[in-house]
Amino acid sequence: MIHQLTLSDVLAEHARSRPQVTAVADGEVRLTYPELDERVTRLANALAARGVTAGERVLWLGQNAHAVLELLLASSRLGAIFCPANWRQSADELSFVLEDLTPKVVVWERSEAAAPLSGDGWILAGADYEAFLAGGSAEAVAEFADDTAPVLALYTAAFDGRPNAALLSSAALVAHSASLLVVRQMEPGFTFLNNGPLFHVGTMMFCLATLQIGGTNVFTPAFDAEEVCRLVDAEKVTQAFLFGQMIDAVVAANAGGKYDLSSLRFVSHSDEWDAMITVDDSPWCRSKMGGYGQTEVGGMLTFLGLAPGAAGFAGRPSPLVQVRLLDDSGAEVPPGEAGEICARGKSLFSGYFNRPELNAAKTRGGWHHTGDLGRREPDGTITFIGPRLRMIKSGNENVYPAEVERALKTHPAVADAAVIGVPDERWHQAVKAVVVLKEGRAASAEEIVEHVKGALASYKKPRDVVFAESIPKRGFTPDYDAIDAAHGGGNYPGS
Amino acid sequence: MIHQLTLSDVLAEHARSRPQVTAVADGEVRLTYPELDERVTRLANALAARGVTAGERVLWLGQNAHAVLELLLASSRLGAIFCPANWRQSADELSFVLEDLTPKVVVWERSEAAAPLSGDGWILAGADYEAFLAGGSAEAVAEFADDTAPVLALYTAAFDGRPNAALLSSAALVAHSASLLVVRQMEPGFTFLNNGPLFHVGTMMFCLATLQIGGTNVFTPAFDAEEVCRLVDAEKVTQAFLFGQMIDAVVAANAGGKYDLSSLRFVSHSDEWDAMITVDDSPWCRSKMGGYGQTEVGGMLTFLGLAPGAAGFAGRPSPLVQVRLLDDSGAEVPPGEAGEICARGKSLFSGYFNRPELNAAKTRGGWHHTGDLGRREPDGTITFIGPRLRMIKSGNENVYPAEVERALKTHPAVADAAVIGVPDERWHQAVKAVVVLKEGRAASAEEIVEHVKGALASYKKPRDVVFAESIPKRGFTPDYDAIDAAHGGGNYPGS
Repeated sequence: MIHQLTLSDVLAEHARSRPQVTAVADGEVRLTYPELDERVTRLANALAARGVTAGERVLWLGQNAHAVLELLLASSRLGAIFCPANWRQSADELSFVLEDLTPKVVVWERSEAAAPLSGDGWILAGADYEAFLAGGSAEAVAEFADDTAPVLALYTAAFDGRPNAALLSSAALVAHSASLLVVRQMEPGFTFLNNGPLFHVGTMMFCLATLQIGGTNVFTPAFDAEEVCRLVDAEKVTQAFLFGQMIDAVVAANAGGKYDLSSLRFVSHSDEWDAMITVDDSPWCRSKMGGYGQTEVGGMLTFLGLAPGAAGFAGRPSPLVQVRLLDDSGAEVPPGEAGEICARGKSLFSGYFNRPELNAAKTRGGWHHTGDLGRREPDGTITFIGPRLRMIKSGNENVYPAEVERALKTHPAVADAAVIGVPDERWHQAVKAVVVLKEGRAASAEEIVEHVKGALASYKKPRDVVFAESIPKRGFTPDYDAIDAAHGGGNYPGS
Repeated sequence: MIHQLTLSDVLAEHARSRPQVTAVADGEVRLTYPELDERVTRLANALAARGVTAGERVLWLGQNAHAVLELLLASSRLGAIFCPANWRQSADELSFVLEDLTPKVVVWERSEAAAPLSGDGWILAGADYEAFLAGGSAEAVAEFADDTAPVLALYTAAFDGRPNAALLSSAALVAHSASLLVVRQMEPGFTFLNNGPLFHVGTMMFCLATLQIGGTNVFTPAFDAEEVCRLVDAEKVTQAFLFGQMIDAVVAANAGGKYDLSSLRFVSHSDEWDAMITVDDSPWCRSKMGGYGQTEVGGMLTFLGLAPGAAGFAGRPSPLVQVRLLDDSGAEVPPGEAGEICARGKSLFSGYFNRPELNAAKTRGGWHHTGDLGRREPDGTITFIGPRLRMIKSGNENVYPAEVERALKTHPAVADAAVIGVPDERWHQAVKAVVVLKEGRAASAEEIVEHVKGALASYKKPRDVVFAESIPKRGFTPDYDAIDAAHGGGNYPGS
């Protein structure tokens, strides 16, 4: 048992070794590590009194708040599983989560979608939560020591149309935090502003790494550019969950230089931004945060920051994992070939809650199958190609639309592209490309086919290329059902 | 099984993700990660053919060489346990190690002490080792996946007069490496010169962290100042195993500036040294490498670099462990009081080889008992006091000589001190101090007792102070048997 380290243990250690450090800042609330430790003990005792034992679920339905971290740590102390759910979901979606997870306790912020579902065991965030916590005893909880037990559930990838809760253990989260501490070069004193949604791994992973190094987590309900500026200045924030347009919004909000943002040690973005903050040279910031990840690997699987000058834009694996690119038979594909990104190692998840068949399929051969395609470059680095979910079967060969689309988009005249399979008597399916040309550029179908042939194995090249004004999308990915309907797609394997 | 990560796995990953990186440089030998991986597979197959199965031991008897890393990794591939033994030992000491560990294979460099012991299963380093390795098949070894099994044995702490082999698992070594990667801010490209002895954790831990981040390990048989300069220049070494007088020797060897040492990113030491190297700002280098550690915790347990401005000179625990200061009953002592430094967490060892009773005693209550005394300071940082092995029992109170000696040495007139217990009818033992004054300084016994009283609980102050010319030593610690004999010590608890 001397190898354990639960999230609850991490907190208990900091309460001793960092008695004066601020663990949490959230509006008027400021808690040192010993204060957070005592609140977590009270909360754990209060939850236990409501029947939350090892393996039971606790749900948070609301925006960012320090209560999220408290509920996670109290769940760890009890061996329970905590889930911060997406509060933006519809009543139907929320009701699926409730039926799926059957939580013993729900702590919630009042919302139109949640209100009709509320009932027994529901505690309103704010005064009710405070009263609930204060009612818990401050006596030490009987220790739950198994750090391989799940402690966090995050809803993610929808297979067969329903989302699944990825389960992460303390051991996995602690390992993932260690990899972030390495790549982000986090040190004591690190202050993270939780302004991204904590029901996503992208914000949660930095919240936990900040906890791991004994830093300070600042909470704000959601992204608001002016409020981010105010908090960075007031709390001397080291890093926030910011990129792209969010950074532009922060720059605009601070155009007059009202707030001092120099405590931010972060990625270079624009001249105005770089002048406001301290541009950081850690591998994470140097690489503009590139890499490949998903909830199921604890957050990040590969880091561009670990692969200076890399050919593959996803970089190299974290020091605590292994990656293999496998074909359908489970054999490794050679460098340069597309294969499913598979992983194992310390930060991996423990499967989805209550999905035994899916879990067996996803972890066949002892490797987690990410459902994404990648390629090993000659320098050993990894390129993320796209989801492997859609596959075309042509002449007994597998063709992944994402890979062909990537090749199409490297043609200088191509603005966008989608690839589908059309029924073919001889080959079962044939590859067909729908291509959008850049304004003022021209290219023939033959030219485009030749271009793909130069980049990929010949059987992957489109037999037909049709030109279109635009590609219909669902979010960021092509709406393949609409494209199939418009261009004669069908005969997909398994369909 | 998706959570495993053996040392063999780390190598297998690097062979894919870093095909062009030099893993090992040793004299004429240079190996990329794929080359090292193939040699390790051959070596594992050759060892297996000699009967090395999971749990069997493999011994190295020689100076530093890349074979040490190869034998460790091949042992990991098989689930075997590798031990790099101290080649400076006498024939009697070596013979104890051989009987204790009963290795299936010994790879050795010829020495006076080892020669009479050599026999079946002994392979001479150099040409014989190369032939042995080349005879192994290059076919993949059946995977040994349990990363919690011991893979490295390092002889350490002698209790009851005999040394014990601390067993470290892949999981513990990988976790410890992660903590070094964090505190030393190691990145890909890190090149470590193995010039300290690899049978000690101090060098081994950096060798393994360098492996973990996919860097380059350079091997040299032992410390030689001129050769260190040459290798740093030739291999663009980032860090070597250097401190104190070794650094002075390197500075002297490079007085003419013959070698370019600027690739070294290391601790500040002297003006000449600082001008030759690149002074590094990582927490490890900033703190001049302070902290507390021992083989049993994988290397370092606490780091001064994680505790800027700390009161306790051992700093704060690594992010992957917990520390408690416990009394004899297993209860935590309050801050400011001396207690045994106890630890648990990811980098801890798996007990001593073949010492079930000792292991049960050392891990009672689920905490590894280091055998050392420490104190939690008001800021939560930790001070290492000294070994707790010797204890004085006075009026039912425990008094640790190391703690009283530390207090005595803070008196401006005291150069050295040793504390013993003398038999006492009323109190069982009384505290007696033997004090050496600094040249030209004077202090009365009363003054010295008052000084200690100001720093420690009154029952710990010496009742008697005697002055002496010097303190007899065994290595760095007082020779208590000799001091007891000279000054009437006795009646120790348990004696």
